[in-house]
Amino acid sequence: MSLRETIHQIATRARDAGEKLSELPTREKDGWLLRAVERLEAAREYVRAENRRDLDAAAEKGVAEPLVRRLELSDEKWRDMLAGLRDVAALPDPVGRIEDMRVRPNELRVGRMRIPLGVIGIIYESRPNVTVDAAALCVKAGNAVILRGGSEAIHSNLALAVELRAAAVDVGIPENAVQVVETTDREAIEHLLRESKNVDLIIPRGGPGLIRMVTENSHIPVIKHDAGVCHVYIDASADPEMAKRIAVDSKLRQMAVCNGLETLLVHRDAAQSVMPGILKALHEEGVELRGDETVARSFGDVVPANEADWTAEYLAPILAVRVVDDLDAAVAHIRRYGSDHTEVIVTESYTRAQEFLRRVNSATVGVNCSTAFSDGYRLGLGAEIGISTSKLHAFGPMGLEELTTRKFVLYGEGQLRE
Amino acid sequence: MSLRETIHQIATRARDAGEKLSELPTREKDGWLLRAVERLEAAREYVRAENRRDLDAAAEKGVAEPLVRRLELSDEKWRDMLAGLRDVAALPDPVGRIEDMRVRPNELRVGRMRIPLGVIGIIYESRPNVTVDAAALCVKAGNAVILRGGSEAIHSNLALAVELRAAAVDVGIPENAVQVVETTDREAIEHLLRESKNVDLIIPRGGPGLIRMVTENSHIPVIKHDAGVCHVYIDASADPEMAKRIAVDSKLRQMAVCNGLETLLVHRDAAQSVMPGILKALHEEGVELRGDETVARSFGDVVPANEADWTAEYLAPILAVRVVDDLDAAVAHIRRYGSDHTEVIVTESYTRAQEFLRRVNSATVGVNCSTAFSDGYRLGLGAEIGISTSKLHAFGPMGLEELTTRKFVLYGEGQLRE
Repeated sequence: MSLRETIHQIATRARDAGEKLSELPTREKDGWLLRAVERLEAAREYVRAENRRDLDAAAEKGVAEPLVRRLELSDEKWRDMLAGLRDVAALPDPVGRIEDMRVRPNELRVGRMRIPLGVIGIIYESRPNVTVDAAALCVKAGNAVILRGGSEAIHSNLALAVELRAAAVDVGIPENAVQVVETTDREAIEHLLRESKNVDLIIPRGGPGLIRMVTENSHIPVIKHDAGVCHVYIDASADPEMAKRIAVDSKLRQMAVCNGLETLLVHRDAAQSVMPGILKALHEEGVELRGDETVARSFGDVVPANEADWTAEYLAPILAVRVVDDLDAAVAHIRRYGSDHTEVIVTESYTRAQEFLRRVNSATVGVNCSTAFSDGYRLGLGAEIGISTSKLHAFGPMGLEELTTRKFVLYGEGQLRE
Repeated sequence: MSLRETIHQIATRARDAGEKLSELPTREKDGWLLRAVERLEAAREYVRAENRRDLDAAAEKGVAEPLVRRLELSDEKWRDMLAGLRDVAALPDPVGRIEDMRVRPNELRVGRMRIPLGVIGIIYESRPNVTVDAAALCVKAGNAVILRGGSEAIHSNLALAVELRAAAVDVGIPENAVQVVETTDREAIEHLLRESKNVDLIIPRGGPGLIRMVTENSHIPVIKHDAGVCHVYIDASADPEMAKRIAVDSKLRQMAVCNGLETLLVHRDAAQSVMPGILKALHEEGVELRGDETVARSFGDVVPANEADWTAEYLAPILAVRVVDDLDAAVAHIRRYGSDHTEVIVTESYTRAQEFLRRVNSATVGVNCSTAFSDGYRLGLGAEIGISTSKLHAFGPMGLEELTTRKFVLYGEGQLRE
């Protein structure tokens, strides 16, 4: 069978499984999730050995340390992964929920019922735990999932899929609810992106190269999980202590995540008062500061920033800092250089808080809180499959509900339009 | 300037206009809509003359009568078009509305605020009134719009755009809120579909060739407005009189629309009792019936149906008719041959009504009503920019709300994640 045919077969099987999954009651999907926990617990050594093969291969190629860490199914990640399955089982099922029911003048009852999307393709890199996390969310929302992970994690991904599929057989739900593409040939992605009859949504998770490749080649709708160039704007009226704590938490809590702070914007009236305290605290924690001239005048240890710093997603102990004239200038900077991800204002002014919330159209916009709240769990979605930086369908953190759509349901008694 | 540069300039101007539009209060957008009515009323003769040029060109080319009718801005269409502008002005503005506000355990307030999508590209054919209808809805929802109509309507479209843009200047909103692509070169579409930095959504409205071309070439999210192969399923328990009225209304009310009935499915226990009355009524109205053998046995004047009839969107006085064993078979038929548009069951059985509503995942699914209710106005959306047959973002009739997205808004008091 050619690679194209193999992918087509996977997609056809997924469509078939998706139709069956769309009709399953919640308890059967939850039964699968809990059975998967048992299966994975029993298979810990087997999965560990397969993960070892990937780690050895990575060592042989001399890949960088951060990538190895992402690849490793450590005890902590393993525990989190299984806890995640239990959490998803405990979440309410969005499928079948009826929203916005209304009665029309002709007595026709019109509502909108949540239904699964159908088949979801996830294209990702290096983190094998995504295999389990993504499968759990997609299937709980009634969708079949096709997983195409990175070649560096192929043995781990296949081992995890064996257990997820065995759990499906155990509880009598379609085995093809979860399929991992076995070939690591990049051409497989191109074939998958053309299966528009059988796949309803593609979610790419990975570096800019992957995202671009998927967006430009897909015949299927794509929800991007792109870079986060997140901003904190310190207003003239900001409480200095709160401003410092928010900047530090946003930058340092976790550095290699998309909701971390990358550019600090400071109102010029706060440049002498509030800013030095913030920069000192960050500098003491080892953060390299790259700033404009005003920043350099106000604080000694600053590398001159250039244009590229305003669009940089460092994911590292580096921070771009810019002094701006007012809120207008802050909004203009965010629109020009930002990535529509997460922006926060620190202010004591009610009016400027409201204005910032209204005018900045990023996926998450906050007042007086850390950028790190831009996260499905922290925002109360109960789970997260990623953070969309595309405006269509879902914008920002995506939970179970974002893996469904709505159909109109009409309860009539013989109504005609005539 | 090359065509690519021209389109890029249009897209850049739209992005800029969209940012300004996203901040406009409702009254300014409504002011534009009402000013556009005045402008168009005053320019009736000029637009009529430009429309005449398109009609003359069509006559010269000898184009078919239905296309000419779509092209003509008749008095009735003109009235409807202006009434549409007033209706949109009277609709509530979705932008800025906060939904799903909740308080997190750490007292962080999290809500979701509706915001415009940004820039919308509409690619359509022959109907010049779409220029005005689509512009009104997109701009009311705070979006800039790029309109690319068919070459056959270019003079009409440009004349209408002149008035819409003049109205914008009159009331002080960005003129580039509405732009019509002047060139009728098909290559312009390809360039537009690559402007992913400046355009957020593409809505193609037209024949299957246009839809396919757009889907396969777009780097921008696309919401399709595709064929409607709509079904009515007559259950064994259906009320014969209601079944007949619903089938007749669904088929005959308007034939050339996507929510019209194309395939009638009949439970075998209703084939002798209910079906003949329905077929007789349709046949008397001049509908050609194409059916399977059981249908032919029960009713004389039936053309044998072949496989192509089950997927046909006739938009004409032709109806495919099939007798099925049960609801399972009806659902299977709809899944296999349907277009995810609109399906209706006629039944007196509560259980089968619920089952049909649950299992059939088309955009609109109804019990005991005409398929013709699958329409934004009739379902209470207040307006309609089209009917999506894609599941992402919007599925089924799309109104103003579907031309917006939601961002998370966070009201904090210094919360950190730590």
